[in-house]
Amino acid sequence: MTVMTAEQIEAFLDEVFPQRMGRTESVGDMCATLRLAIDDQHLRPGPRVSGPTMMGFADVALYVAILAQIGPEPMAVTSDLNCHFLRAASGEHDIVAHARLIKLGRRLAVGEVQIFSVSDDTRPVAHITASYALPDKPSREQAV
Amino acid sequence: MTVMTAEQIEAFLDEVFPQRMGRTESVGDMCATLRLAIDDQHLRPGPRVSGPTMMGFADVALYVAILAQIGPEPMAVTSDLNCHFLRAASGEHDIVAHARLIKLGRRLAVGEVQIFSVSDDTRPVAHITASYALPDKPSREQAV
Amino acid sequence: MTVMTAEQIEAFLDEVFPQRMGRTESVGDMCATLRLAIDDQHLRPGPRVSGPTMMGFADVALYVAILAQIGPEPMAVTSDLNCHFLRAASGEHDIVAHARLIKLGRRLAVGEVQIFSVSDDTRPVAHITASYALPDKPSREQAV
Amino acid sequence: MTVMTAEQIEAFLDEVFPQRMGRTESVGDMCATLRLAIDDQHLRPGPRVSGPTMMGFADVALYVAILAQIGPEPMAVTSDLNCHFLRAASGEHDIVAHARLIKLGRRLAVGEVQIFSVSDDTRPVAHITASYALPDKPSREQAV
Repeated sequence: MTVMTAEQIEAFLDEVFPQRMGRTESVGDMCATLRLAIDDQHLRPGPRVSGPTMMGFADVALYVAILAQIGPEPMAVTSDLNCHFLRAASGEHDIVAHARLIKLGRRLAVGEVQIFSVSDDTRPVAHITASYALPDKPSREQAV
Repeated sequence: MTVMTAEQIEAFLDEVFPQRMGRTESVGDMCATLRLAIDDQHLRPGPRVSGPTMMGFADVALYVAILAQIGPEPMAVTSDLNCHFLRAASGEHDIVAHARLIKLGRRLAVGEVQIFSVSDDTRPVAHITASYALPDKPSREQAV
Repeated sequence: MTVMTAEQIEAFLDEVFPQRMGRTESVGDMCATLRLAIDDQHLRPGPRVSGPTMMGFADVALYVAILAQIGPEPMAVTSDLNCHFLRAASGEHDIVAHARLIKLGRRLAVGEVQIFSVSDDTRPVAHITASYALPDKPSREQAV
Repeated sequence: MTVMTAEQIEAFLDEVFPQRMGRTESVGDMCATLRLAIDDQHLRPGPRVSGPTMMGFADVALYVAILAQIGPEPMAVTSDLNCHFLRAASGEHDIVAHARLIKLGRRLAVGEVQIFSVSDDTRPVAHITASYALPDKPSREQAV
């Protein structure tokens, strides 16, 4: 069950993390979808979407999925991130991230993200898994 | 589209890799499900299922998913494997791996696996991603 | 500064984790060296040393490096492990793991391991990084 | 043995990848050191150096180490990247990357990077491993 809407999350992030990549399109139970409008700062030669862009965008997407479950919490810290780059993402199209939490524990969250170019919604351009250290909050229930 | 059945894959693996972990229950398009009967060699203190058991089993599961797509091919080599351990898996229950190929290219395959204890099919005990170097075969088509 | 010798660590592990892979050869400040005698259970076709063997052995090596720093502590839990397989390790030779802690914090340790075949001590056969959740112990100082 | 100097690598990158992060300070056998001057685009709230900045910078550092060994080659493609974030890096200090190639094969390179804040050269702020697909070039010798 989510405790924040996409709009509430965007308002919260505008305040605490205005320079983040992407915008939340929707959130659901343990998941979130974000879209990133590509401009010059996101490109590497090709032009294609750069690796750091995809990794940073995935990180935001998982943070959004966590916020949707636990509420406004500025202190989630990424502890590790693993990215497989699957194919080139044309720099001429926006990219979309589908994030899904695999575990949301009291101290640790783990999730995965598939990133697609909007020009091809069948073959992901990157797959990311990442872990987050959560601030201690004994009352948070152990979810999936 | 698969080119080998679960039975054909098991017969092939019995020949080339008899000491592998687990047995194939089913294969589908870009995916496979395997089950591992836990015995003493798979345990660490607790008793719980050991980490190497889960990683090795996931590796077999992705190899099976690749075989189902490309046919008997003894040469796929794991190039990297990333595992997040999510919760303890009781040593008293079998474990099941759901493997899914994210990319199957000419030279490289990438996939992910969720491992569950049969005692709880809602919360995975481990999540694995891995890459495989495939033998060159120019005729293999670029699949998803 | 280490608080346990290699001999003390082996005695402790013989008690709490007798089925582990490998034996500690030496420990030092934030590091440890272990050796694994290869037998049939460690092989895959080739014969070469199997991937799960290398990952499990690396996991033990980092656990030993942690024990050397923090003392007998049966509860360190691996939270993630990432392995790059670099080249085949002949099944006819023992393997050696050089483990090094990159971070040892109050709740989290991170380390890396290089594994070599004793037949070639210049080119590693695998490189592993892994994270460990440590039991809370407020008095543990934040080391490197 | 290196085949390009730090100056030659910078000149090459200025041409093919002007928007990269950081500047090469030195290259050596299978290694490279780079420095990144931190400005607003590299920050997240804190202010601290952002995760994508560290991952992107590490990626450049390994690419530089590869260039130093194989010569100007615009086509090296990152296939996977794994990052452990170890501690916060203050946004008020530059960061330095020490990159080291673990394997440089005909088709694949694997390396690791330690990133430090210049305010503390004893405790790394991040540790990265990554793999690179290299263009086929049968004449390249198998190095380390």
